[in-house]
Amino acid sequence: MFEKLDLTKTIDDESFEKSIGPLKERLGILQRTLRDLNIPVMIVIEGWNAAGITMSTAEIIQSLDPRGFNLHAIDNPSDEERARPFMWRFWLRTPSKGRIAIFARSWYSRALAEKLSSLSWKKSMKDKIVSINNFERQIADGGAVVIKFFLHISKEEQKMRLLERERNPLTAWLVTPHIWNFHQHYDTYLPIIDEFIENTDTDYAPWHVIESTDRKYAIFKVYSFLVKTLEKKILENQAGISKKGKIKSISKPPRTPVLRRSSSESSHSKDECQDILNNLQIEMLELHYLLFKRRIPFIIVYEGWDAAGKGGNITRIARFMNPLGYDVIPIAAPNENEKQYHYLRRFIKYFPAAGHIAVYDRSWYGRVLVERVEGFCSENEWQRAYQEINEMEQDYVESSGGGMVKFWLEIDKDEQLKRFKQREQDPLKQYKITDEDWRNRQKWDSYNSAVDEMLARTNTPYAPWVVIESDDKWYARVKALKTVIKNVEKLL
Amino acid sequence: MFEKLDLTKTIDDESFEKSIGPLKERLGILQRTLRDLNIPVMIVIEGWNAAGITMSTAEIIQSLDPRGFNLHAIDNPSDEERARPFMWRFWLRTPSKGRIAIFARSWYSRALAEKLSSLSWKKSMKDKIVSINNFERQIADGGAVVIKFFLHISKEEQKMRLLERERNPLTAWLVTPHIWNFHQHYDTYLPIIDEFIENTDTDYAPWHVIESTDRKYAIFKVYSFLVKTLEKKILENQAGISKKGKIKSISKPPRTPVLRRSSSESSHSKDECQDILNNLQIEMLELHYLLFKRRIPFIIVYEGWDAAGKGGNITRIARFMNPLGYDVIPIAAPNENEKQYHYLRRFIKYFPAAGHIAVYDRSWYGRVLVERVEGFCSENEWQRAYQEINEMEQDYVESSGGGMVKFWLEIDKDEQLKRFKQREQDPLKQYKITDEDWRNRQKWDSYNSAVDEMLARTNTPYAPWVVIESDDKWYARVKALKTVIKNVEKLL
Repeated sequence: MFEKLDLTKTIDDESFEKSIGPLKERLGILQRTLRDLNIPVMIVIEGWNAAGITMSTAEIIQSLDPRGFNLHAIDNPSDEERARPFMWRFWLRTPSKGRIAIFARSWYSRALAEKLSSLSWKKSMKDKIVSINNFERQIADGGAVVIKFFLHISKEEQKMRLLERERNPLTAWLVTPHIWNFHQHYDTYLPIIDEFIENTDTDYAPWHVIESTDRKYAIFKVYSFLVKTLEKKILENQAGISKKGKIKSISKPPRTPVLRRSSSESSHSKDECQDILNNLQIEMLELHYLLFKRRIPFIIVYEGWDAAGKGGNITRIARFMNPLGYDVIPIAAPNENEKQYHYLRRFIKYFPAAGHIAVYDRSWYGRVLVERVEGFCSENEWQRAYQEINEMEQDYVESSGGGMVKFWLEIDKDEQLKRFKQREQDPLKQYKITDEDWRNRQKWDSYNSAVDEMLARTNTPYAPWVVIESDDKWYARVKALKTVIKNVEKLL
Repeated sequence: MFEKLDLTKTIDDESFEKSIGPLKERLGILQRTLRDLNIPVMIVIEGWNAAGITMSTAEIIQSLDPRGFNLHAIDNPSDEERARPFMWRFWLRTPSKGRIAIFARSWYSRALAEKLSSLSWKKSMKDKIVSINNFERQIADGGAVVIKFFLHISKEEQKMRLLERERNPLTAWLVTPHIWNFHQHYDTYLPIIDEFIENTDTDYAPWHVIESTDRKYAIFKVYSFLVKTLEKKILENQAGISKKGKIKSISKPPRTPVLRRSSSESSHSKDECQDILNNLQIEMLELHYLLFKRRIPFIIVYEGWDAAGKGGNITRIARFMNPLGYDVIPIAAPNENEKQYHYLRRFIKYFPAAGHIAVYDRSWYGRVLVERVEGFCSENEWQRAYQEINEMEQDYVESSGGGMVKFWLEIDKDEQLKRFKQREQDPLKQYKITDEDWRNRQKWDSYNSAVDEMLARTNTPYAPWVVIESDDKWYARVKALKTVIKNVEKLL
């Protein structure tokens, strides 16, 4: 890609002055239109050191209303970010509807920085490319525009600029040995970056490589591409040609039916289960210490019928964990703020830090359960979700080195009715039962087939589903805890 | 305080078993009542190492609905937190309405940890006590219950417990040399902690020091105090005896009238101003580098009449700053989520990191302007706000080592009318003028006296107000930039 570029390209002052004003004004207007249309925009500005990333960023934001954008300068991750999967910090910074997120450096620079310090960087690079492409595709499928710039200068030009900065006492301290070291290896990195760009140059998130020797030419090109891309998106949106809902020819994961049963073959007395539980809880406490010590994160997902006993089950599992090392994350309908973002963001936000356990009381599977059944999202959206969820889970497991297990708590329809009625009669439990529970119950069959499809399409080796037969609460608690222990042990 | 305690206190098994069940159940019920009443709760659990902080926390949360609390384990600050004022991370973790925030260790442990490593710790401790008391008073005045526990054990008991942990291979690694070192100085710290507790034992946030030699006794006491305090708060609330609105006999800052003028004595041509601005902007760029390099944060607050030119003024100031080193924070009415918290939290959240500049386009002064005039808060609330704001600004300046300057952009009533009409006629600026602007204009006189009182009561040496005569936009821009430069220079 770099070979084809002509780094001597310039723009004369007159043409620049004539064109830049209208482009800036146009960008300001486009920002307001995008806001009115609720379209999120993600702008990535990458490039060689001293190629003008800061300068281009400063240019763009001067044409924008500060009420409508966020600028993210991406440098080394913070401790909190380092303890999470690679893409976590970027997910949190994705734009909400109608807003613009500008990344001055991004996951590309970070992937490169991490990669080059890793021994198996070729393998690591491949993984990162998959993660990044999945991320950008998901954001674009969610309705966002993704625009990526790479500012390109030659090695000689870079040297000149770094020397210039060193001569200025105000900027000299910015030119670190690390930057000079990177400069010296310019020719080594060139083909690596070239390949990186080529493999992430997609139809949903294309690269614009900008010849940046002439600063004015670079600014002009950045503005031109920005305005052109945003105008196109707005036209498409207004014409109703949204790529959002289109199902791509994606390789669907095989459907492997998962058998559901509501009661177990063997049965145990409550006392018997209590004894087993007590022993298991001590085992769990020890394993939790080991996870914490070795900084391995673990996710436990609870899904199941209303009144299947998720709450009690979670409490039993948690009882002997260190409270500072786990979080129970109760998931309800998204609030107004959460609705402004990609639907996966609010779950990713609570991904556990290294060494921590996150217990999701309901989860992202709401997309293919309640949202599907109640029509809160389009068919295209929930159809797409199986793959998106599998990708998210795989990415989490691979990039964090952690584990995940997902529980479906199964009870039969009669058992649910019995429990609903019990709750209604118990003054301490009345608050647990609402009209919504009764309404959901009426749609038992629709939910039933949604559950079947969910289990079949998202039961993966890295994040398996385990059906917990929950008609007998005590048996259910023992099985859940045993399953967690088994899965944690596999990781250690 | 510690002298009066009897560390041999115990509870017999039978009494414990009889009382703990009902207490736990009661706590669960109280949580739901507090949620329904929208009362936030802040529980602080402090104590000696190995005194049972983790164990007590684990106990409490087992009686709580995970949907309604957050547990914050407070350890060393992250990089992001370290770059902010001391109380910043705690402000962000304050509970929203109806929720419980539990702090396992808190600002107390952190203040102590920082203090003991500082040379001038006696002075630093005094400052921290003021900060902490102000913080807790503000949170309590905002309607929250603040409950603080200190778990107390003797030096001998601590030694025994640490040795016990060391013998267990699972917990041995938790007993660091640092913890042993702290143990060895138990007798040195005892009077320091005693004094710290005594000076922060207030009516709005009282301490409960718990004799924790007998674990069951400690748990019993923690539950008892919790239930008692929460029940009292609920009764008060239901009886309408809310402390929220009561104005305490607080020392009001002196009112120093600040003169406002809308046009300057001297006048300059636009061209002249442009030249001056260009030179100042270069100076600003240099100062910004120095702030960045020396990790000094700076806050610029813009308030002013509608159409006074805040936007244009901010753009001119920002033009020559490094975009990665400043943020413009546009303040609109609080959204639903923000309304769930103390009104200052959403502003504190955006306090600049060390070396960064934050430009607030409108600010916390909304409390004593629009919220006062439109009746969005009670008189007690806005009357209290002057002191709260002064405290917040002083705390920010002192604990971050940064600076702050606040601009009031003054135009006269006729000039505003002229600008409103111009905006209505310019298709590119129409979006800037709304019905609300016209409505606000009708209340000019009410706003006028609110502005006078605001300037008089919050013009402090650490965060001065500067009136910018803005009838002449160009003059206003020059004056604002000059003022920022002067104030930044004073810091360097």
